[in-house]
Amino acid sequence: MTQKTYQRIVLASRPQGSPVAPTHFRLEQATVPTVQPGQVLVRNHYLSLDPYMRGRMEDMKSYAAPQPVGETMVGGTVGIVEASQHPGFKPGDAVVGYLGWAEYGLSDGKMLNKVDTTHVPLSAYLGPVGMPGVTAWYGLRRICEPKPGETVLVSAASGAVGSVVGQLAKSIGCRAVGIAGGPEKCAYVRGELGFDACIDHREHTDLKSMGQALKAAAPDGIDCLFENVGGVGFDAALARMNAFGRVALCGLIAGYEGGDIALQNVRALLVNRLKLQGFIVAEHLDAWPAALAELGAGVASGRIKYRESIAQGLAAAPEAFIGMLHGKNFGKQLVKLT
Amino acid sequence: MTQKTYQRIVLASRPQGSPVAPTHFRLEQATVPTVQPGQVLVRNHYLSLDPYMRGRMEDMKSYAAPQPVGETMVGGTVGIVEASQHPGFKPGDAVVGYLGWAEYGLSDGKMLNKVDTTHVPLSAYLGPVGMPGVTAWYGLRRICEPKPGETVLVSAASGAVGSVVGQLAKSIGCRAVGIAGGPEKCAYVRGELGFDACIDHREHTDLKSMGQALKAAAPDGIDCLFENVGGVGFDAALARMNAFGRVALCGLIAGYEGGDIALQNVRALLVNRLKLQGFIVAEHLDAWPAALAELGAGVASGRIKYRESIAQGLAAAPEAFIGMLHGKNFGKQLVKLT
Repeated sequence: MTQKTYQRIVLASRPQGSPVAPTHFRLEQATVPTVQPGQVLVRNHYLSLDPYMRGRMEDMKSYAAPQPVGETMVGGTVGIVEASQHPGFKPGDAVVGYLGWAEYGLSDGKMLNKVDTTHVPLSAYLGPVGMPGVTAWYGLRRICEPKPGETVLVSAASGAVGSVVGQLAKSIGCRAVGIAGGPEKCAYVRGELGFDACIDHREHTDLKSMGQALKAAAPDGIDCLFENVGGVGFDAALARMNAFGRVALCGLIAGYEGGDIALQNVRALLVNRLKLQGFIVAEHLDAWPAALAELGAGVASGRIKYRESIAQGLAAAPEAFIGMLHGKNFGKQLVKLT
Repeated sequence: MTQKTYQRIVLASRPQGSPVAPTHFRLEQATVPTVQPGQVLVRNHYLSLDPYMRGRMEDMKSYAAPQPVGETMVGGTVGIVEASQHPGFKPGDAVVGYLGWAEYGLSDGKMLNKVDTTHVPLSAYLGPVGMPGVTAWYGLRRICEPKPGETVLVSAASGAVGSVVGQLAKSIGCRAVGIAGGPEKCAYVRGELGFDACIDHREHTDLKSMGQALKAAAPDGIDCLFENVGGVGFDAALARMNAFGRVALCGLIAGYEGGDIALQNVRALLVNRLKLQGFIVAEHLDAWPAALAELGAGVASGRIKYRESIAQGLAAAPEAFIGMLHGKNFGKQLVKLT
């Protein structure tokens, strides 16, 4: 009898601080496993590509163990249960989990959650109603805590996290200002997502120019900064913060490829008496239920808008991932596996 | 009748980002004023010299209005009431206030507080039982919130603020590690103040060397960082922080003369999920009574030790101030005015 096979992508080698290349990944064939008691076999429909994966590719001190070389790349997935010997799951169930860069995944049921696709599309559980959405919710609500009338600035504003930050800020009654790369993304951030202003960072590549753009976009100063990128935008924003401003430090993607970018305006942290907090949403599981309930309702009702960049087929994942690290995606980067 | 005169020092010109020179100050003679109803005349005995004054000398966005050119330099003072037409004060009262770089000062009673010199020397109200002590107390207790067994690192550890930070940390049951300039200061920090370790930053002038020194001095990592200086020590410390570490950002004196020093290890704020807060103790007046009570008792009993660098006579103030900005003081920098 011929055994059914599936594709998976493993880490072939570590970039060791250099930009990621397709050769750091290897596509492999594997046999679809047989379900044992307590196990669930999932056919993955979408794979999520996220900036945090870049950090896992290195063997360095970080908040998570490094991705082992030769093993399936870690990653969030949504899919449909194909076979189950687990009492909590049955064939046909839609599930979200962390089954990695692979067409199939075997789970013991932990870290696997059933989702309702009646009003929310399956893929949205990897975006606005998944980890990126909860990241936005947590950083804004629990760290920034903006009040109505305050100004919230978010970088990578058209992305999976940033787009939700701005829309939540608007729903609170804040002025929402975004930073994004290129006129098309900025038009989307303003027009579709409803931000009050958007700055194209490609037009403002030095501190002075970015500072002037921020002054125009946030004339009353910045009360809350949700930082996803780092570099010039982060640096210039610190100098434009109001006294007692809050900074949710979520990501520094500008530095993920090719070394960290130094921060010039360190003194702004002191002079403006800022509170800055770095965070990883996976460490705040207590916040997930409330966040997912609000985000799910927002997406189901159409109040929370989102956009996806979808690469076709697992083999396209490395290139899509590398593109995302350089801002080539527009909205949440996914890989369609079916 | 000959009118009695006194000396005062005014800001002659702004440094505008250059190092401070004696020519930025001007010594003037003034007539000792006659007390009007509601006023108190104080003979200042000690003037406090503090790093924050450097910021006031510039006309830039900061947490306080700039020091006006041609007016008496701002500054904390302790002295004895010489004449009073204010019901709250009588001649002979020991008082702490903000009467500036001057031998005499006139007050309306606001910002002037009577102090008890029975068990605490008058000058200590400008140090461990004054603004520097409360700064240490607030940053450690309200921002860092260290638990017993955690490691607290403080820069400028032999100074007016740092010396109190380390001693309070020890009283909580923490490992206290200091950074100071030179073997003499480090010997004092360890021997007299009771820190567990002290790093001489003059021996560790680059990130790698300082990182190694921190690894040896704080083998379990750093949980709380009380930052007074900035530059290499700050940068290297961030990389050695434990997950969920706290940073009380109190000062960046390394950058006060000749431009800011960029921060390299920005990513450590994210990777280590740090919480950083810039603060100005004058904005947290609610904390002062509890802080002063504890600090006063500590100094009176001898549990809190401190050291002073005393310049003689108001004319010596500019040179002492410039020296302090370059770390030439040893302990709290005062000017004796009597």
